[in-house]
Amino acid sequence: MVYLGIDVGGTGIKVGVVDENGAILRQGETPTLVGRPFGEIVRDMGVCALSVLEQGGFTVADVVSIGVGVPGVADQKTGTVVFCTNLGWHNEPLRAELQKYIDKPVYIDNDATVAGYAESICGVSMGCHSSVFLTLGTGVGGGIVIGGRPWSGFHGVGSEIGHIPMDIDGEPCTCGNNGCLERYCSATAIIRMGRQAMLNHPDSALYQACGGDTNNVTAKIVLDCAKEGDDVSLKVFRHYVHYMCLALDTIIAFLDPEMIILGGGVSKAGNFLLDAIRERLPRYLIFKTLPYSRIEIARLGADAGMIGAAMLGKQPVKEA
Amino acid sequence: MVYLGIDVGGTGIKVGVVDENGAILRQGETPTLVGRPFGEIVRDMGVCALSVLEQGGFTVADVVSIGVGVPGVADQKTGTVVFCTNLGWHNEPLRAELQKYIDKPVYIDNDATVAGYAESICGVSMGCHSSVFLTLGTGVGGGIVIGGRPWSGFHGVGSEIGHIPMDIDGEPCTCGNNGCLERYCSATAIIRMGRQAMLNHPDSALYQACGGDTNNVTAKIVLDCAKEGDDVSLKVFRHYVHYMCLALDTIIAFLDPEMIILGGGVSKAGNFLLDAIRERLPRYLIFKTLPYSRIEIARLGADAGMIGAAMLGKQPVKEA
Repeated sequence: MVYLGIDVGGTGIKVGVVDENGAILRQGETPTLVGRPFGEIVRDMGVCALSVLEQGGFTVADVVSIGVGVPGVADQKTGTVVFCTNLGWHNEPLRAELQKYIDKPVYIDNDATVAGYAESICGVSMGCHSSVFLTLGTGVGGGIVIGGRPWSGFHGVGSEIGHIPMDIDGEPCTCGNNGCLERYCSATAIIRMGRQAMLNHPDSALYQACGGDTNNVTAKIVLDCAKEGDDVSLKVFRHYVHYMCLALDTIIAFLDPEMIILGGGVSKAGNFLLDAIRERLPRYLIFKTLPYSRIEIARLGADAGMIGAAMLGKQPVKEA
Repeated sequence: MVYLGIDVGGTGIKVGVVDENGAILRQGETPTLVGRPFGEIVRDMGVCALSVLEQGGFTVADVVSIGVGVPGVADQKTGTVVFCTNLGWHNEPLRAELQKYIDKPVYIDNDATVAGYAESICGVSMGCHSSVFLTLGTGVGGGIVIGGRPWSGFHGVGSEIGHIPMDIDGEPCTCGNNGCLERYCSATAIIRMGRQAMLNHPDSALYQACGGDTNNVTAKIVLDCAKEGDDVSLKVFRHYVHYMCLALDTIIAFLDPEMIILGGGVSKAGNFLLDAIRERLPRYLIFKTLPYSRIEIARLGADAGMIGAAMLGKQPVKEA
């Protein structure tokens, strides 16, 4: 028996046939082509899934369940996608629509939540009782696992860690509030700080690396320049680490999970980022001498979404 | 069969004989007399418990287990109180010491955690799957219940909601950080804001009520003056509600529990506080039109600590 995992992104829809241990047996992809009617996108999703199954030598009869990770909020009871800003979805009956193509149980959850769940099934947090996963990308997504099961909140609106208020009168956020965590901890934050630093220091390696054009600033360039010892980029990096430590302190003071996992584009900085965070973090904690959450870099990369979505059906999500 | 619940405070130690539904059958109290050797305090705890049992017509044989709520951090595996600043305890073997007097299983957890647990057993959040309890007092304590069980974190250092950073460069906190949530949401915060407002407005009802002496400012006076329509106190109150909404938004964005419960001294303002919070809160949330945590005032008052501590033994705390 196998599990189908579908990771719906703004660009592509990835489909994986996954075994009960989270191993991907076969995978495929189809473009999302955002802007099309909902029904067309789900049709392509279904067609792609059937095709991937067939290529792997499986039939629908082999499928236990289908899991879908979406960049938004899902109602797990009704199988409806409540909000999915990037795809323009609002109260779309994803479960019912998808079952037209493959009539199996369909579970839906937030993409960061399923990615975090995947890490706890067969990634860096494998076997952890509780974990919080952070995707450090354009924004900051959060995935909470408690007791080995994903937790998106009682109403499905939790684990939005990127929108925890971190600075009362801080940077305006797309959500309408000020000072949300993702204003400080995303790749976008590094770019914002990097642009300002570059303009202030035309003699810097960062300025060189971007050809003097702020449009060329990426989080990777800033982090690479910092790694190579550019003082201006290192200052941005230290600021970023400061903000990350505040975010991690928030997670520890609130939930104190067994592990906190850093994923997403920024996490590709690897040990350079991890070592800096691990060195600085204790001074932010309330109980500076007591054990606290292990901080690790995610292992599953871009496959995490498919794997975690597939595994949603491994044990049915408990009805609250 | 009955459960013993012990609530250790800075002034008094309260002991209750509690039935399996959280009802207090008999209770008593003994002074803590902070500063005495640890062994003496635990001896009084044991003697008081034995006496309360006897007064209620019970014997040690009737006792299933003993639960203790402490204003600090406990290691549930070893039964040690790791940190208890107000009592000056550091790595004290509370379980072993208490078992010298009553040889039953001993469970120990944070006082706000057990108070929140009590509300979920027989208080306002009875039957809730998940809840977060806030004690709004000198500081802000937090108690998390998930799946009907108290959650203090994997390492026991979680649910310290008062020390979530809310303002990066904000008010200095006793914990060494800046801008912790309890700097804005505690009774102490109301007093701080009230004192300043009073000094700025010698013509205010607040100034009158305090006899012009900032030492007389209490959270109750500020809230009472606000209730009576004093503009100066109302402005402080609106500031407080703003901060509370940010705190509640943090809890919802992170954990999205079924219910959030307001306890502690400030919560005695009752519906005056609750109505203002409920009215303002939606504008702070990311998903302003989706269901979110119910906000309620705690019901069990000062008994919550005893009841929740007692109930720790109802189902043994799972080893993580």
